[in-house]
Amino acid sequence: MKENLPALVTLLAVLLMFGTAFAVGRARGRYQVHAPATSGHPAFERAFRVQMNTLEAALLFLPTLWLAAHYGFAFWAGIAGLVWLAARTWYALAYLQEAARRGGGFVLGMTAWAATLLMALTGLGRALLAG
Amino acid sequence: MKENLPALVTLLAVLLMFGTAFAVGRARGRYQVHAPATSGHPAFERAFRVQMNTLEAALLFLPTLWLAAHYGFAFWAGIAGLVWLAARTWYALAYLQEAARRGGGFVLGMTAWAATLLMALTGLGRALLAG
Amino acid sequence: MKENLPALVTLLAVLLMFGTAFAVGRARGRYQVHAPATSGHPAFERAFRVQMNTLEAALLFLPTLWLAAHYGFAFWAGIAGLVWLAARTWYALAYLQEAARRGGGFVLGMTAWAATLLMALTGLGRALLAG
Repeated sequence: MKENLPALVTLLAVLLMFGTAFAVGRARGRYQVHAPATSGHPAFERAFRVQMNTLEAALLFLPTLWLAAHYGFAFWAGIAGLVWLAARTWYALAYLQEAARRGGGFVLGMTAWAATLLMALTGLGRALLAG
Repeated sequence: MKENLPALVTLLAVLLMFGTAFAVGRARGRYQVHAPATSGHPAFERAFRVQMNTLEAALLFLPTLWLAAHYGFAFWAGIAGLVWLAARTWYALAYLQEAARRGGGFVLGMTAWAATLLMALTGLGRALLAG
Repeated sequence: MKENLPALVTLLAVLLMFGTAFAVGRARGRYQVHAPATSGHPAFERAFRVQMNTLEAALLFLPTLWLAAHYGFAFWAGIAGLVWLAARTWYALAYLQEAARRGGGFVLGMTAWAATLLMALTGLGRALLAG
């Protein structure tokens, strides 16, 4: 079943999104930022940005992952997905500490996404040429 | 067609997201919060948080729903999806009234998501073990 | 391969999301809005709203597109997708200039989405009736 690795990556990405949402909820309590406010303490704001940026990144990554998988790159897109997961976890943990430390994980995550995008474009281009 | 129920849940989830976006647009007019601002009146801010939180919840739920459906749980994941839709509608209507009332729908929605996640993990685990 | 056009639309939608995220990053530097802040200069706030609204719109559009494609409307849903991409690009470029100019692209994008939704509902309804 060639889709098992992309499926595993997708479930782990969902759990990563859940983890970043959980961190926001905990920061709401710890820093007394009551809903619906989304500002008021720098540590809360970092947690909130981590959640939103993780969600934005997943919206770029997951559709690309599945298109790459559909067009013949299920294994390599899955490997890129594991790299992406590691990068985005690094990004989240570093950014929660300090905004300035978010660069490395961000760049690695974008690189893994770009690799998957290249696979999807290659596969789709081949399919379009084959008619 | 075992995917019809997850498909119905997905379309209703899209309509729920549309409804929460519509409520933000209406609140912009009613409370005179002009774009690009996203704060300025508590009722607008609640509508905005309802939209964003619905979107975050859908990003956890929809991929999990389809993976559970793919790995042999289309019917039960669809049923969990109907519970999730009811819970998220309750959450939205209650939070629009008052932030403190958002707890019940939130917890029920997370429970429905957790059930779907368990199905997806079970199905994927079985597929991985079967090689 | 009837899914090639929806796949192309999806990759272009992902690239549009990337483009709006890139515009936010550039605005952070140009207007000196340091993370995790998401306000501080009207031009930055417009770029940020463009990114978020593009993401919200894609979350309505992409699931609907694929359900319409699955239920027998791959070609017409793909055409609606090209209209949606043009509309959302127009929306993004106009809103980056001035908030008041975002209406046209927004309405056209919603119309393209509504067309796709009608296809998905028609197809799903037919499948449910057929048992």
